[in-house]
Amino acid sequence: MAARQVVNSVRRVAIFGGTHGNELSGVFLVNHWLKHGEEIARPGIEVRPFITNPGAVEKCVRYVDTDLNRVFDSENLRSESNSNTYEVKRAQYINSIFGPKGSEDAYDVILDLHNTTSHMGATLILENSKDDFTIQMLNYIKNSMAPLSCYVLLIEHQRLKYATTRSIAKHPIGVEVGPQPQGVLRADVLDKMRSIIKHALDFMNYFNEGKEFLPCSLEVYKVMDKVAYPRNANGDCTAFIHKNLQDQDWKELKPGDPMFFTLDGRMMAYEGDCTVYPTFINEAAYYEKNQAFTITQKMTLCAQAIRCTPPK
Amino acid sequence: MAARQVVNSVRRVAIFGGTHGNELSGVFLVNHWLKHGEEIARPGIEVRPFITNPGAVEKCVRYVDTDLNRVFDSENLRSESNSNTYEVKRAQYINSIFGPKGSEDAYDVILDLHNTTSHMGATLILENSKDDFTIQMLNYIKNSMAPLSCYVLLIEHQRLKYATTRSIAKHPIGVEVGPQPQGVLRADVLDKMRSIIKHALDFMNYFNEGKEFLPCSLEVYKVMDKVAYPRNANGDCTAFIHKNLQDQDWKELKPGDPMFFTLDGRMMAYEGDCTVYPTFINEAAYYEKNQAFTITQKMTLCAQAIRCTPPK
Ligand SMILES: [Zn+2]
Ligand SMILES: [Zn+2]
Repeated sequence: MAARQVVNSVRRVAIFGGTHGNELSGVFLVNHWLKHGEEIARPGIEVRPFITNPGAVEKCVRYVDTDLNRVFDSENLRSESNSNTYEVKRAQYINSIFGPKGSEDAYDVILDLHNTTSHMGATLILENSKDDFTIQMLNYIKNSMAPLSCYVLLIEHQRLKYATTRSIAKHPIGVEVGPQPQGVLRADVLDKMRSIIKHALDFMNYFNEGKEFLPCSLEVYKVMDKVAYPRNANGDCTAFIHKNLQDQDWKELKPGDPMFFTLDGRMMAYEGDCTVYPTFINEAAYYEKNQAFTITQKMTLCAQAIRCTPPK
Repeated sequence: MAARQVVNSVRRVAIFGGTHGNELSGVFLVNHWLKHGEEIARPGIEVRPFITNPGAVEKCVRYVDTDLNRVFDSENLRSESNSNTYEVKRAQYINSIFGPKGSEDAYDVILDLHNTTSHMGATLILENSKDDFTIQMLNYIKNSMAPLSCYVLLIEHQRLKYATTRSIAKHPIGVEVGPQPQGVLRADVLDKMRSIIKHALDFMNYFNEGKEFLPCSLEVYKVMDKVAYPRNANGDCTAFIHKNLQDQDWKELKPGDPMFFTLDGRMMAYEGDCTVYPTFINEAAYYEKNQAFTITQKMTLCAQAIRCTPPK
């Protein structure tokens, strides 16, 4: 007989918008749900919509002082320095409400809403390949979104650490939908994000009602590395995403395939030693991080069956 | 016999990039041409690439204090106030090099490079429906771009005044290519912009060589009005571009067609009294101007034949 995990019911869920203040789908959905909560209400679950970076939302910029989505590490969360940035102060405040990170008191699930300028479609971001509950949820969402594509990006990595806003929850889930320019709200992108949230909440509702979710396997794209833009001695970008690679997120990139072009007409090919699946191709926010795209590999995760602890 | 205008040869041309600092095609092309001028060199013409708003380019924002592309009116160009914004100071400096606006000393032609998040494709912006030389140039560019579409937007308007950066030239031409998110460089958009500049310079070269351009007619989209986002009493946007209108720049919008949607599921139709052609649909930079899209009407301009003053 297959193993089965028995997990506590889901009691507290947060939906974060505005972690990046110019990613408008989440900003407008969360602001809408703050006034009209019926759509996200589910029996027995506290579902709390929350704007995480109101300072950045106000100015319609990614962040005020520093990227909020990278400061949820123990050092920043504990820092008592007077020179803490706006975002570090916000992180501590958010952690005090929805955390503390790593504790029993932390929220069960946080869904953090993001947009990208990359052609990634509907993407779910998973942080932990051992988290069967979240894998089951993402599998449910992915199947419910079909025939629309829905990709899962696994950001678990030895070296690359993210310290995301949602990481304070027991089960953190990033929702990343694109392409959408910064500072723009597109109806098609909004619809996809809204469907993802509906299916996520439905899953938690069925789970709490006692439905058993059978063992499943989930195709994910695991982050392997980041590819930088070529720069000259002055630090200026000297090459850009090649037209053959533009908008080709999640598609095969093979050694020898065009990767960058220069303004004087040269092509630079991908020189890795195996086929990879690029994503976050030409994301606006990553120019300052000098990141042209992210390389992933496809793999399959398996999750045990899960069922809720029977009600007392 | 048809009338023919005899016009002086073109001596001085400027190519402006970075009038909006986060519209990267022009920024990178102009920076490239500042180092590698061969591509834009034409015999007997001074072609000067120039970054108009380096402060905004540095920060990758639209502007530092105020929109540079709206301050080239006589009041700002003459102001000696100590409290002039960064952009007003830049405008005066630019006017001192490439102007003075309205004088004989002004540059012959300024091509000002812009990007939009709207699906406008390759667009040329004309300021004056009586300027036969420019109409002939835009007609030449449009024909040279075929089979790629190339649209001409005429911004001459009784009430809406633009005071653009390029307006200091005798013949100002806006080049607007999209869709491209702010802060992103796309290869396809760059290619279109680069082709437009090549054809513009070729036209001026042929013209200077004495080629006669025969009478022509040019289809243009003339700006009629702007459509605002609906807002509530707090000034918050309450409706957004409907999915049927998104990406439909230059296509017919008829009375009764969907225009906006609200987050609680209502559709708002276009209520004008005739068919119009919308453009600048869902442009990121126009949220702060509260402008959802621009309404145009199609019309045809005619230009007389033109020929260069014979060389002495
Ligand atoms: Zn984001
Ligand atoms: Zn612009």
